[in-house]
Formats: sequence, structure tokens, C-alpha cells
Amino acid sequence: MRLTVDIKTLNAGILTVIKSLSSKPVIAVLEGIYLHARKDGLFLRCSDMTLQIDCLIDADVDEEGQVVLPGRLFADIVRRLPGEAASMRLEGRTMSIHAGKVRTQLQCMDPKDFPDMELLGENITFSMPQLELKEMIRQTIFAAASDDTKPILAGALFELKDNMLTTVALDGFRLALRRYATGAVLQDNEAVVPSKALLEIARTLFESDEAVKVSFSKAHMLVDLGHTRMISRLLEGEFIRYRNILPSEHKTRVRVNREALLNSIERAILLAREGVNNLVRFSVEEDTLKLYANSALGKLDEEVQIHLNGDPIEIAFNARYFSDVMRTLTDEEVYLDINTNISPCVVTPVQGNAFYYLVLPVRIFA
Amino acid sequence: MRLTVDIKTLNAGILTVIKSLSSKPVIAVLEGIYLHARKDGLFLRCSDMTLQIDCLIDADVDEEGQVVLPGRLFADIVRRLPGEAASMRLEGRTMSIHAGKVRTQLQCMDPKDFPDMELLGENITFSMPQLELKEMIRQTIFAAASDDTKPILAGALFELKDNMLTTVALDGFRLALRRYATGAVLQDNEAVVPSKALLEIARTLFESDEAVKVSFSKAHMLVDLGHTRMISRLLEGEFIRYRNILPSEHKTRVRVNREALLNSIERAILLAREGVNNLVRFSVEEDTLKLYANSALGKLDEEVQIHLNGDPIEIAFNARYFSDVMRTLTDEEVYLDINTNISPCVVTPVQGNAFYYLVLPVRIFA
Repeated sequence: MRLTVDIKTLNAGILTVIKSLSSKPVIAVLEGIYLHARKDGLFLRCSDMTLQIDCLIDADVDEEGQVVLPGRLFADIVRRLPGEAASMRLEGRTMSIHAGKVRTQLQCMDPKDFPDMELLGENITFSMPQLELKEMIRQTIFAAASDDTKPILAGALFELKDNMLTTVALDGFRLALRRYATGAVLQDNEAVVPSKALLEIARTLFESDEAVKVSFSKAHMLVDLGHTRMISRLLEGEFIRYRNILPSEHKTRVRVNREALLNSIERAILLAREGVNNLVRFSVEEDTLKLYANSALGKLDEEVQIHLNGDPIEIAFNARYFSDVMRTLTDEEVYLDINTNISPCVVTPVQGNAFYYLVLPVRIFA
Repeated sequence: MRLTVDIKTLNAGILTVIKSLSSKPVIAVLEGIYLHARKDGLFLRCSDMTLQIDCLIDADVDEEGQVVLPGRLFADIVRRLPGEAASMRLEGRTMSIHAGKVRTQLQCMDPKDFPDMELLGENITFSMPQLELKEMIRQTIFAAASDDTKPILAGALFELKDNMLTTVALDGFRLALRRYATGAVLQDNEAVVPSKALLEIARTLFESDEAVKVSFSKAHMLVDLGHTRMISRLLEGEFIRYRNILPSEHKTRVRVNREALLNSIERAILLAREGVNNLVRFSVEEDTLKLYANSALGKLDEEVQIHLNGDPIEIAFNARYFSDVMRTLTDEEVYLDINTNISPCVVTPVQGNAFYYLVLPVRIFA
């Protein structure tokens, strides 16, 4: 293995794949970055056994070969190399990296031990804008479970049904859902993707209308950007039948400025966080939503202007579940649809129907 | 106590004093911000018993009074208040804060319990530019001891001798020193100030030529910016007689570009950090300083161009002690003055004599 590579290009490639470097690897080789010098360039790969990221970068390859380099160390060294180009040469188990007057030699690991996730069997494949997928992930995974009591809830459902892609995450207290019309004729399918992997996938996607190819096999999801490919293992087991828990009616509809409500809730949290359940009380009246929060340190109340349609109501929530969704949205106005103060409240943007959020109230009223 | 205050002004005042809010207070009241509504404005104070910060801000005071509010909560609430002005009113032990449609009530603590550090006895006082004091602190405290084995070394010495202010910090492996000619006729004095307090003082000082008044009493240091006053407790005990350990001669003088040496050392650290002592070897030759570092993961060597005056030498250091000082300086070129590879190396800027750094080598040569 012998090659010359532009240092900036190599650094960018490393930063792409290193998102899936294992911090506590099951097998030692996963602490490394897998390199494959090929005719078409230098191929990089990291994997934490849940997410694998591949990246192909330009390089002048004089001699092909494969190797696994200590990941963090290699990344840190490349980031600090002087000049424009680095030459790399593998001799036995030692990789020499030269750049300017800097000479580094790194001890390598055996590339044969490095795992490879591949999509087996028949796949379902479609394209969508990168930004759309990025937003679908961002606007749902915050609602996924953060503990391990129900492992399937630590993932988000990607459901294909009637050519509509629906992403759903829930944790037993709230549910976030995003829809996207694929515009393709696709087989119905369900896949649950670990939210940890989705977070890194969303970070890697650009805020661009350029297309990304998404594929599902029985065991994996592939997000393919061309030179960069991200493959996530799927979670096993069946996702919650979420359609059954979406309420079909409401007695109270509140229309409210999202940012005004977010600001109010973030103040209420300051007091709510000192008590139990981050509790904030909403009192929905004609034209006004009154918020109350209190703890041993003090109390807070304030008013937000609203448009009310239906019955006034008093209801209480975990303030965090409300601030999370208000922060994830960018819409100017949202609806809060409430039925009773012991049944779920639904949050939707006033414009469009791509997003849907459901949150359970805290029962404090008789 | 009743007043109206501009929210931005109040927020800025809180951010100034809260640097000395106790996170683990010895007495409960130190979790609070002390407020004193006076004729001349609203006076704020925090203290962690080592550092006390006072700040006086403009406010329309209708009724004077004193109170202690829960510090973090008060700060977080004020930061998020809407509009321009807030009104505050104390009734019994409850402070009401109103801004726009937000009404908060906070439970207060007894202001009588809040401690006050004052400079007693005869003081030594002089003025110096803020930036100068900020730099004196920044360029020395990084060398102070970070553990508690010798408590006096967790501070920096402020020595007044022949009207020269010298600040010194050392940890047994290295020593950093800054000098400033006060231009005043002052009594000789020694004070050791905790580096934790100095860090916050330096953060509060501006990069400005405006004067700051510095005073020392037997037990305290006062840094007075007018509306903001910072008072630090002094450490008890005698500082190391540092003059005795400064070498008087050198056999080797290396002149080197500071940034080039810093970059080389930061690469060497990547390998050195895997081994013991962060060890990096310097081989000083005609026109070239060669650096070597190695660990189980690999090795690195590189060259930096130098001007040599005197004998070639091989010497080894803890790389961190070298990168620390190179980062703290802003000079283009520095001297490394070396005697033997088992005696201290002295680092000084080529220009001026305000800064002086001494570092012990690691003995690896017979």
C-alpha cells in the first residue's frame, strides 16, 4: 500500500467516517479506521457495529492495499499535519506517514478482522432530498426513549405504506411523527432504526435539495450519498401499533405563536425543574393561555395570547415535553388539540400535515 | 425594597457577580446573590468565600432594602425575561419580579447571613492597565499546581519589590513569571492569591488600557474597576524562595519560531500522551531542533529550524509543559536556554524581559 493524498481531503474523509468510531469497542479492531487503497481512490470505513460509515476520497494510489490504523490517533495526527500533501506507505504492520518534515509511523491492525455490513436479499430503494431526510430524523428522534426499558423504543420506525414514508418515535409519554410522500411505487415495509445511528446520519446529511438514496433490507438501512454511504443495523422486534393511540377528535383547539409559547415554557421550566415531573399547568381561556409553575424556591405565572376554538380547559404537562417539540419546529403557529385533561394533546403546525406530535398530560386534576 | 431596572443591565450585572457563586457552598446563603437596593442603584454580590465580586448597576430605587435570592434560578429567569424593564418588589421573604406578562415570585434568604470580605488595616494600592493585569495572570497561573499536595502552590505570588510587581506561579516542574514596573513608590510586599480566584479576575478584566486599581492588605487582594470590585482571600504561608532556583548561566541558546515549535510539540503530544510523562525528546543540532516521540501505537519525528548559539545537546521534556508555555505567549520568537540535560531550561521571548519560564527536563540520559 503506497499513496499520496491531499491532507484537507483526507481530513474531511476521516471526519465523515469517525462519527461511527467505537468508543468502547466490542472487538479491538473497531477502535481503528479501515483504509483500502484502491484504483479509484482511498476508501475509509468506521463501524460501531450499529452504524457503519464508508467514504471514498481522491488519492494517487501507487500500490493497492488494506490496513486498519488506530482511529483517534490517526485522525489527530492528520488534522495537525503541515503542508498540502501527505504520502503514506505500508511496510509489514507499520504505516509511515510523511508530510513536510514530519515523519510518523503507526502500528496497524489486521484489516481481515474488520467487519462489513452489507444489505442482503431484496431491497426497497427510493430517493428523497437530503434536507427532507435530515428534518424527518431531527423532528422525530428527540421523542425516542433514552433508557433501555423497552429497547424497540430507542429507535424510530420508518414505515412505508401506500408509497408514503412515515417516521415515528415515541417513549410512552409522547410521540413524534413525520410524513413524506415518496412519489414512487414501493412495497409496504417497516424498519426500526436505532436513534443513535439516526443522529449521526442526520448530522452527516446536508441542508440541500440534492437527492439521497435510501434503501431497506430485512436487517439494514442504507443512506447513500455517493462517495459516502451510511449503513445502520435495524432493531429487532415489532414497533408499537402507533395508529391505535392517535386520538380521533378534540374538544379544544388552541392556535398559538410557537416562539411565544416556547419562551414562556422555557421560563416555566426554570421553576418546574426544581419540583417533580417538570410540571407546568396550562389554563386555556378565551384569548389567553395562562401558564403556572412552582417549586419550593418560588413560582411563576404568565400569559400567552391565543385563538381558542372550543371549550376552555385546565391541563398540566411535563414542560420538557412541550419545549422539546416547540424547539424542533420552525413553523410560526401551531395548533394544540385537547380533548380532556387526562387524554393526549396533539400538536401540529397550522400549515401542512407533515408533522404530528402527541403528548400525554400529567394527571393533577380530579 | 422596590425598584425598576433595565433587564439587560441587570443581566450583565448578574453575569459579572455570578462568576463567584458557590457551587458547593459552605453555608446555604452563598448559593444566593445578595442584592442591596440603595440610593445610588442596585448593588449585587456573590462570594464563594475565596473570591467575592461586587457590582453596582443603575436602577430606579423607590424603596431601599436588602435580600438574598437563589442565585442560579434568579440568573436564569432574568436572562429569559421579555421586554426592556423589570420591576422588583420585596414583601416579607418573597421577591416579586414582573416583566411584561410574566410574574415570578422567589423565596428569599436572610441578607444578614451574607458574608462581606473587606480589606482591613493598612493597604498598598497602585494602578495598572487592565490588559496588563489580565496578561500577568494568564501567563502565570497555568503553571500553578493543580493538586493540593502543597496548598501554597495552588496560588500565584504577587511580589512587590523595588516598585516592581512580579507574579510567579510554579508547580515543582515548571515556573512562570511576569514582571511589571508599577511606576509608583510602593512598600515591598508579598501576597499569594489562589489561582482559581485569579482565573475569574482575569476573565472579568477587559483587554483595555484603562486603569484598574489593585490593593493588598494582609489577608486580601482587591481588584477595583469602579462599578465592579473583586476581592480575593490570600493563601496563608510562605511562597517558595523562587529566586534561588533561577539558573544564572546557560551553555546552549536556541532561537526558534514559537508557532513552529508549538505545532511540532502538539503533534508530538499525540504520541507522547500514550506513553509515560508525555515524553518528547529534543535533539539540538546546528540549525535544527529534532523532536522525537513514541509510544506502543507508533512514533513521530520531525524537524524545526533554529538558530543555535553554543553547544548541541540532547534533552527530554514533558511535552505538555512546553506546549502550555508556547500557547500562552504571543511572541514571534523565543529563546530556549539550556545548561545540561538534567538542569532547568529557561524560555524567554526574544523581545523584552517581562516574561520568564523555567521547565525541568525529564532525566532519560545517563
